[in-house]
Amino acid sequence: MTSGTTPSATPSRAKVSRRGLIGGGAAAAGVAGAFAAGRWATPEEHAVTAVHASSYPFCGEQQAGIVTPVQDRLHFVALDVTTDDRDELIDLLRRWTDAAARMTRGASAGPVGPVEGSALLPPDDTGEAIGLSASGLTITFGFGPGVFLDADGNDRFGLADRRPAALEPLPHFAADALDPRRTGGDLCIQACADDPQVAVHAIRNLVRIGFGTTAVRWSQLGFGRTSTTSNAQTTPRNLFGFKDGTHNVKLEETADLADHVWVGAGDDAAADWLVGGSYLVTRRINMTIEVWDRQPLGDQELFVGRTKDSGAPLTGGGEFTKPDFAQQVGDQPVIPVDAHVRVVHPDQHGGIRMLRRGYNFVDGSNDIGGLEAGLFFIGYVRDPRTHFIPIQRAMAAQDALMEYLKFTGQALFAVPPGVREGEYVGQALFAS
Amino acid sequence: MTSGTTPSATPSRAKVSRRGLIGGGAAAAGVAGAFAAGRWATPEEHAVTAVHASSYPFCGEQQAGIVTPVQDRLHFVALDVTTDDRDELIDLLRRWTDAAARMTRGASAGPVGPVEGSALLPPDDTGEAIGLSASGLTITFGFGPGVFLDADGNDRFGLADRRPAALEPLPHFAADALDPRRTGGDLCIQACADDPQVAVHAIRNLVRIGFGTTAVRWSQLGFGRTSTTSNAQTTPRNLFGFKDGTHNVKLEETADLADHVWVGAGDDAAADWLVGGSYLVTRRINMTIEVWDRQPLGDQELFVGRTKDSGAPLTGGGEFTKPDFAQQVGDQPVIPVDAHVRVVHPDQHGGIRMLRRGYNFVDGSNDIGGLEAGLFFIGYVRDPRTHFIPIQRAMAAQDALMEYLKFTGQALFAVPPGVREGEYVGQALFAS
Ligand code: HEM
Ligand code: HEM
Repeated sequence: MTSGTTPSATPSRAKVSRRGLIGGGAAAAGVAGAFAAGRWATPEEHAVTAVHASSYPFCGEQQAGIVTPVQDRLHFVALDVTTDDRDELIDLLRRWTDAAARMTRGASAGPVGPVEGSALLPPDDTGEAIGLSASGLTITFGFGPGVFLDADGNDRFGLADRRPAALEPLPHFAADALDPRRTGGDLCIQACADDPQVAVHAIRNLVRIGFGTTAVRWSQLGFGRTSTTSNAQTTPRNLFGFKDGTHNVKLEETADLADHVWVGAGDDAAADWLVGGSYLVTRRINMTIEVWDRQPLGDQELFVGRTKDSGAPLTGGGEFTKPDFAQQVGDQPVIPVDAHVRVVHPDQHGGIRMLRRGYNFVDGSNDIGGLEAGLFFIGYVRDPRTHFIPIQRAMAAQDALMEYLKFTGQALFAVPPGVREGEYVGQALFAS
Repeated sequence: MTSGTTPSATPSRAKVSRRGLIGGGAAAAGVAGAFAAGRWATPEEHAVTAVHASSYPFCGEQQAGIVTPVQDRLHFVALDVTTDDRDELIDLLRRWTDAAARMTRGASAGPVGPVEGSALLPPDDTGEAIGLSASGLTITFGFGPGVFLDADGNDRFGLADRRPAALEPLPHFAADALDPRRTGGDLCIQACADDPQVAVHAIRNLVRIGFGTTAVRWSQLGFGRTSTTSNAQTTPRNLFGFKDGTHNVKLEETADLADHVWVGAGDDAAADWLVGGSYLVTRRINMTIEVWDRQPLGDQELFVGRTKDSGAPLTGGGEFTKPDFAQQVGDQPVIPVDAHVRVVHPDQHGGIRMLRRGYNFVDGSNDIGGLEAGLFFIGYVRDPRTHFIPIQRAMAAQDALMEYLKFTGQALFAVPPGVREGEYVGQALFAS
């Protein structure tokens, strides 16, 4: 079992609540209190507030937020690094690590310790999560191709020789309609939590800490999970109305995780710093739900290869029964050759699997009187060249779902392994 | 007490869960089941599934979703009517009423009753809420100015003489930067629920029912409430990090509701159909949170007029203590003249109040490397001319918060009173 996968026992499954700015009692009430304050309480100081959400430790063998049982809400941001200074980048990663460790245990983003006269300085934390629990928050960091070689081919940070060979911008897939403002990025932060305000708060404070060193390239809110990463979770539904996540790689499947999700020791000599990490693929997929909704139920089920109600394969059984791709009605396969679950199934791709962690989104409305809605796909794989690109290619070429999808954004990041106490995220990348 | 304000006792606080397409047991498993299905279970058939969320009755003296204790999540849509046919509009309202009544009790959107061979027809419901509870869903409908007179001044539906005098497009306020694609609309639907998938599902299915008669003009997701409408709720925080909703009109304040929220019997002779209803104002307010976050805590508190931690007025006490606008430090008022809570306070506006029901939003990122985030303001008032426009004008002219706000959308709707069993929403408007 990897760490960071289950809520830890006391003290991490702490009933810790963010608390307000110090200066309680008489001082907090009124103008005097407003000016007396300026720092956040340490979590220890406030470890007594009763909340019912768990917290996941930030430190561990792997970063949390990959096999962690998928939380309900997502805020994801891709940033560009605006400095060329290696030390500034390292300093940012240190400060991010510190803030992420604090926020995931339900504390504020800011530094611990009293700051004299700090009512005259901006608050350490933006405050909108005061009183909320950790809500199962995980924060996961990744490095995009631009950290190693920027768009002009410059090795800004002296990292080019440590670039993982797999960390190339993803190719163009048939029918992609990528928006450059939703594509790419030098760094990414995935915040997942059961309370969206907690996920938004985390990203906002990390973006704030990055001010002057990074700029937001794009960000995406996901309102509902479309996968499960633990056998203990029930399967949610995507906006086509189908159960999604049934045959995902789960945290209980440690052998499959080692084979298909975590970067192995011999995978890439240049990128030893990535061993135990993973690659994160995002694809923003607009669904033409108005057209989908006009398709007969039977057709929808043929497109997917599973029933809408129970999620069972069309060849029978329950949700977790294996599909029988050989079964025929007359001379036709029961699960059509272009059914999504057949096209992307491991059987078609030499046994390859991936860990999916996508979210439903609705971002207002589109120009044709419909909803701008879809699935923000997140996949974690050991190597995108073997574990993602071929499957996405097959899907683009022959999947029945493609008629109802438009791919509007994508990105690829190398996600370093977990952080040990005292280290910063990605530290091994910068070790000489 | 108005109805629709509290979860009703059995059977409405029913432990009802949406269930899947009929065709259970052997038939549901496999291809045969996929084709045997086609309609949804009635809520009665599935009233046994245990879920822990409440449901609010759709019928009542007022529409639910106004004084109903504010749910955590919002999906709001504004639509334009694309038909000129009065009967088609009435038919739409009938079908919306039926679907809304079903969905708010945790059932599917589609009609009850078996449909032969319906696997060859599109499913009645889009399906993504199968298995989810009612989640406190409320659905609230409103009529925009365009229903009475369209943009060319045509009386498409023969309703011009029933137009409420107050239902004029809102004026331009100083510093407005309205996006026409986020402004106006002939009809609106507000869906609030504690599960965002349930709110999104409701809007999507109502939009789907409107296909051919209406087109989505804009829609807005709100991920977290910024108000309370009941003394039983705790006050949430907006993205400036401050408690919001403290001094809102609450459902327990029936006298203030009658004075400030519900349209009264003598208010408007032409619009007797609106008596017992209300006006709904939306303002999409972008917050420049990156700039806000650089302001000292003391300044932030002076801009608002309350402390960030407890929400108490700067003049002392606790969250619910009345602000003392006369209190001075030296010759300066403790709550500055441009503090938000002073500028919008009833004391400045002849005692006028409003019921606020806004939500935090994050819609990706903006062009300057920040988050596109803010507050989607929703206010319910008895008359926008007396209860909203003067307060918004004062705010635009002199509120310290204005420096951190950009108003990017707005709309005004007349919200008819509640629906009685067997009626459709807005029926009195069409009565001759
Ligand atoms: C909006 C687009 C998509 C929809 C609606 C969708 C839907 C589904 C559904 C309903 C299932 C079956 C349940 C399950 O096992 O989780 C599934 C499985 C799967 N999907 Fe997708 N999917 C989409 C995009 C993608 C993409 C982009 C990929 C990767 C290129 C992908 C890869 C997979 C894989 C690997 C499985 C598991 C197959 C198996 O092992 O049985 N999907 N998808
Ligand atoms: C993003 C913009 C806004 C922010 C951040 C904001 C914030 C706040 C805060 C923190 C309070 C004090 C707590 C409470 O009583 O709820 C408040 C009160 C109030 N706000 Fe706003 N507000 C915003 C926009 C507006 C707008 C557009 C209006 C109407 C034109 C408005 C009207 C009011 C009213 C009437 C009160 C209650 C004042 C009282 O009775 O004490 N606000 N607002």
